[in-house]
Amino acid sequence: MWEQQLAEIRKGNNKTLARCISVIENEVSGYEALLQALPSSDIPVIGITGPPGAGKSTLTDALIGLLVTRGKNVAVLCVDPSSPFNLGALLGDRIRMSEWYNNPMVFIRSLATRGSLGGLHPKIIEISDLVKTAPFDLIIIETVGVGQSEIEIAGLADVTIVVMGPESGDEVQTMKAGLMEIADLFVVNKADRPGADLLVKNLKLMFHIADKNALPVPVIKTIASQKEGIQELVETILSLLDQNSHNDKRTWLLAEKAWHLIRQKKMNTLTKLDIKKQIESTGKDFNLYRFIKTHY
Amino acid sequence: MWEQQLAEIRKGNNKTLARCISVIENEVSGYEALLQALPSSDIPVIGITGPPGAGKSTLTDALIGLLVTRGKNVAVLCVDPSSPFNLGALLGDRIRMSEWYNNPMVFIRSLATRGSLGGLHPKIIEISDLVKTAPFDLIIIETVGVGQSEIEIAGLADVTIVVMGPESGDEVQTMKAGLMEIADLFVVNKADRPGADLLVKNLKLMFHIADKNALPVPVIKTIASQKEGIQELVETILSLLDQNSHNDKRTWLLAEKAWHLIRQKKMNTLTKLDIKKQIESTGKDFNLYRFIKTHY
Repeated sequence: MWEQQLAEIRKGNNKTLARCISVIENEVSGYEALLQALPSSDIPVIGITGPPGAGKSTLTDALIGLLVTRGKNVAVLCVDPSSPFNLGALLGDRIRMSEWYNNPMVFIRSLATRGSLGGLHPKIIEISDLVKTAPFDLIIIETVGVGQSEIEIAGLADVTIVVMGPESGDEVQTMKAGLMEIADLFVVNKADRPGADLLVKNLKLMFHIADKNALPVPVIKTIASQKEGIQELVETILSLLDQNSHNDKRTWLLAEKAWHLIRQKKMNTLTKLDIKKQIESTGKDFNLYRFIKTHY
Repeated sequence: MWEQQLAEIRKGNNKTLARCISVIENEVSGYEALLQALPSSDIPVIGITGPPGAGKSTLTDALIGLLVTRGKNVAVLCVDPSSPFNLGALLGDRIRMSEWYNNPMVFIRSLATRGSLGGLHPKIIEISDLVKTAPFDLIIIETVGVGQSEIEIAGLADVTIVVMGPESGDEVQTMKAGLMEIADLFVVNKADRPGADLLVKNLKLMFHIADKNALPVPVIKTIASQKEGIQELVETILSLLDQNSHNDKRTWLLAEKAWHLIRQKKMNTLTKLDIKKQIESTGKDFNLYRFIKTHY
């Protein structure tokens, strides 16, 4: 049923790819057959996350630039509602990013988070699997924050990059310890601003305190708006991909994704908020086990 | 069916309580009816966690001592396989802890983790709900680490205490950023040893970096073996309980527990490790969606 479309996608037809993403996103009848027809793929996924204002999109923009220069085809999935990619990239100094929309080597797709509290798109596993069918060399998924979504970016990406800016105000407010835990690679962006070196030092200290015996997580300084540090970033990503490409990490990622999909299937769309509301509407003499027996 | 036993437990009959815990632990026929017969309860739960060797049990011991002096009845559930409570408390300087087993104001129960990788007991939600039926003033749950179990201690306890020692070697190795995130209160134990002040300073720095605008997480120094700092610890716990006793936090904890119980019911005992093994035994042309459709 979907062979023809998949053949087009494999040839690099990005219009067909975009249409099939919409099929999955909107659960158009037959989308399950499409997923079940996807071939295996080894295309690496890079996750980019961090608090709003850290410069994730500018960094992604710089990354795309360098990768395209090196002849690489790149797909970008943007799940960050604060990202200019997601807003159409038409404001102020962000306008340059819209140029990628017309570059045949670059595919960009914004995904609405649909009223979820943040984190990833409910169909991000499926959509990234579809994109892997196309002949890209690398897939970048840009998202914001952690801890709100069913699956974290770290369960989806071969290499997870956490980006921060040196500003210590609102920017760091949404930063959680969880971000540290998932980082394969840390980027301190806007490294020309005051506080960057202190942040680098503090990050290294935090990682050191957290796990003295682990391999140190690389911390890289960039000024994405001036393309500074991007070369080193790309080299580090490629070397991490090399380390992570062994089967065991790959199989763990598959198991992680499978577990989330199975849970999604079995838990349907039940959230803790739904449960809380239901509990609140229950009488005073509350018994958890009668409650679950009655409702689930 | 269980009214008589529950009446005994409510009167403070700890033998009946112990027997009913075993009923739940071993899923003895009728245990679901027992759970569904549990009354509502507001007895606060204190979670104590941290890496092995931090002195969690010595701290728990000192806490029990002070609480008993103040006329409080205390229950301790121990899910930490490295805890002397769990080993029977019969070795070396740990022997004093066994005295609590004969004190009528103290109830101690060790729970085997049953080959799980760490974290909490699979029936800890149910067992702590049962213990809440008895006339204790406080329930302490001692566990080790985070991130391995279905439900974290923070989803179970009204106040979560993370304990660390100043040793920076093996002790800190198992410490993860996740521990920072769940702490309502941080204890630096063995505060007479070198490095304690540095650890306190680093912890305060980490919390400050992680969230500048949040209320600071209290960091308390103790020397549990000499009962030092325990008074301040108890006061801080009581004041945090006071803050957390409002309905909303309580309802969130209920929703958290309900969610985990429902997931357990629906996911049965499926682990990512099981899925990984199953994936490994599948052929080369792996498709996640056919895999899930076939197996789940």
